[in-house]
Amino acid sequence: LQVFSCNSNINLAKSICDQMNIPLGDAQVGNFSDGEIHIKLNESVRGSDVYVIQSTCDPVNQHLMELLVMVDALRRASASTINVVIPYYGYARQDRKARARDPITAKLVANLIQTAGAHRVITMDLHATQIQGFFDIPVDHLLGVPILASYFKEKGLEDVVVVSPDHGGVVRARRLAERLEAPIAIIDKRRPEPNVAEVMNIVGDVRGRTAIIIDDIIDTAGTITLAANALLEQGAKEVYTCCTHPVFSGPAIERIREANIKEMVVTDTIPLPEHKKLDKIKVLSVASLMSEAI
Amino acid sequence: LQVFSCNSNINLAKSICDQMNIPLGDAQVGNFSDGEIHIKLNESVRGSDVYVIQSTCDPVNQHLMELLVMVDALRRASASTINVVIPYYGYARQDRKARARDPITAKLVANLIQTAGAHRVITMDLHATQIQGFFDIPVDHLLGVPILASYFKEKGLEDVVVVSPDHGGVVRARRLAERLEAPIAIIDKRRPEPNVAEVMNIVGDVRGRTAIIIDDIIDTAGTITLAANALLEQGAKEVYTCCTHPVFSGPAIERIREANIKEMVVTDTIPLPEHKKLDKIKVLSVASLMSEAI
Ligand SMILES: Nc1ncnc2c1ncn2[C@@H]1O[C@H](COP(=O)(O)O)[C@@H](O)[C@H]1O
Ligand SMILES: Nc1ncnc2c1ncn2[C@@H]1O[C@H](COP(=O)(O)O)[C@@H](O)[C@H]1O
Repeated sequence: LQVFSCNSNINLAKSICDQMNIPLGDAQVGNFSDGEIHIKLNESVRGSDVYVIQSTCDPVNQHLMELLVMVDALRRASASTINVVIPYYGYARQDRKARARDPITAKLVANLIQTAGAHRVITMDLHATQIQGFFDIPVDHLLGVPILASYFKEKGLEDVVVVSPDHGGVVRARRLAERLEAPIAIIDKRRPEPNVAEVMNIVGDVRGRTAIIIDDIIDTAGTITLAANALLEQGAKEVYTCCTHPVFSGPAIERIREANIKEMVVTDTIPLPEHKKLDKIKVLSVASLMSEAI
Repeated sequence: LQVFSCNSNINLAKSICDQMNIPLGDAQVGNFSDGEIHIKLNESVRGSDVYVIQSTCDPVNQHLMELLVMVDALRRASASTINVVIPYYGYARQDRKARARDPITAKLVANLIQTAGAHRVITMDLHATQIQGFFDIPVDHLLGVPILASYFKEKGLEDVVVVSPDHGGVVRARRLAERLEAPIAIIDKRRPEPNVAEVMNIVGDVRGRTAIIIDDIIDTAGTITLAANALLEQGAKEVYTCCTHPVFSGPAIERIREANIKEMVVTDTIPLPEHKKLDKIKVLSVASLMSEAI
């Protein structure tokens, strides 16, 4: 068994190897002067079960190609099985034709990964669980909820209510709520008339309670910060937010800094660069979960 | 028949459409805030023969994914045939296992393009013509030599010798030489001892002649500028250089600026950004060649 890493998530890959008590596979993943990816495997993989750790986070196309070229190199070097570990599966929100003539990039990416030669996929909190079915190879789908739940349990918060920021996230919110033995509430976004701002209507009782909003991906953090305000207006005592995948693009960090939230709890499926680190952002590691899955 | 363009080569795509007297297909090819590609086809392609123009030049991974997502969108929108026009085929230098455990990315890219759903490929001056065989769909392979030859013919240069910068480029040099009714010379790079600089030995007579060095790709321009010096030392009167694909990465522009060459003649298979334009770089268009192939 060998574990290699591309460039998206080297620290996570190292932690996974530490947990497993094996060294990280020796490979260089770089670029030629014209930007083309250059991969060099410095150890034999012949006949071996190989794992490659790579999130397809920003820069998503670079990271995806690194993964595909790595799989190509491993296959041609006669690895026995190639298991790709994709803590954050990018393009997951392009999972259906929302409008006419849309691409379905989440399916395209699944096809590309299979074409490159992967035998199995391990991933976490897919934006749509249907994406498992986009693959014809086995997909292990891990959940972030247990990690987030342990963290909040240890905090010993009282009178908690778990909040789903939309109807699509209710199952996830319920999972967290069960572990915290708390009720749930749901934010019901409605546009009263066209061209009028959305209203955030809260279904469920939050008055006097500590609200924990949970989502799978937080991208520009627009919805979540508005949701936090709506909860406070409805009498919530304080608001925590959490997610598995901190995409944090565009104005996200600015919004989180200004937002009226106690803490933003995330995992390391996507690493946060220095300029995205804030005191109120708490990062939990998925390394032991991943190493168990391997 | 409809022609769409992704972002690598919009001006070339427009010229091709002008030549064909049709409008460029209406599509947006952009990015979401997190860097994921977002494509919107603004016109129906149902039952149509569609052409997509895209070079996989720097940023190569972004450009490749734009092409793949575009093909995915066209396929799902029921285009009848999808023909991808790739004036510059990136990753072509990764066409074999030069060392143990190398990937063969040129083949991977061929597989990815087919997986996305392309029916036919039109490309130009592949670094290795074997890449045609990496595809199981038809590949039309166009040559830049006629365009370069016409340009040099019109210049009316006398006593020309066409020079191949290495043994791999001799066929190309001969093609140009035939059209210019000139002899050829070959640069024979040799390393006399390990860790001693390469010596450029010239096979053929260049004394008193106007040398035209031809290559398929000029990347960092190291070889070509050294070759120009070697030719001048051997008594060449003056040196022109030409290629189909001006990759021009890293120190290329600086080297070309300093080099003792009269002109660098290239095509627009890869567009030159403002900061790569020099008076001595002459750009010829492949638009009419491409429009004939379509
Ligand atoms: N990377 C992205 N950033 C923002 N929006 C996206 C992205 N990818 C897809 N979308 C859009 O998000 C919507 C799907 O999100 P959802 O309804 O949460 O599944 C679709 O309308 C997509 O066009
Ligand atoms: N984008 C690139 N930039 C520089 N060198 C490359 C690139 N892609 C492949 N190569 C190397 O170029 C060599 C092949 O070039 P050639 O011998 O001209 O076919 C191989 O050793 C490759 O590792």
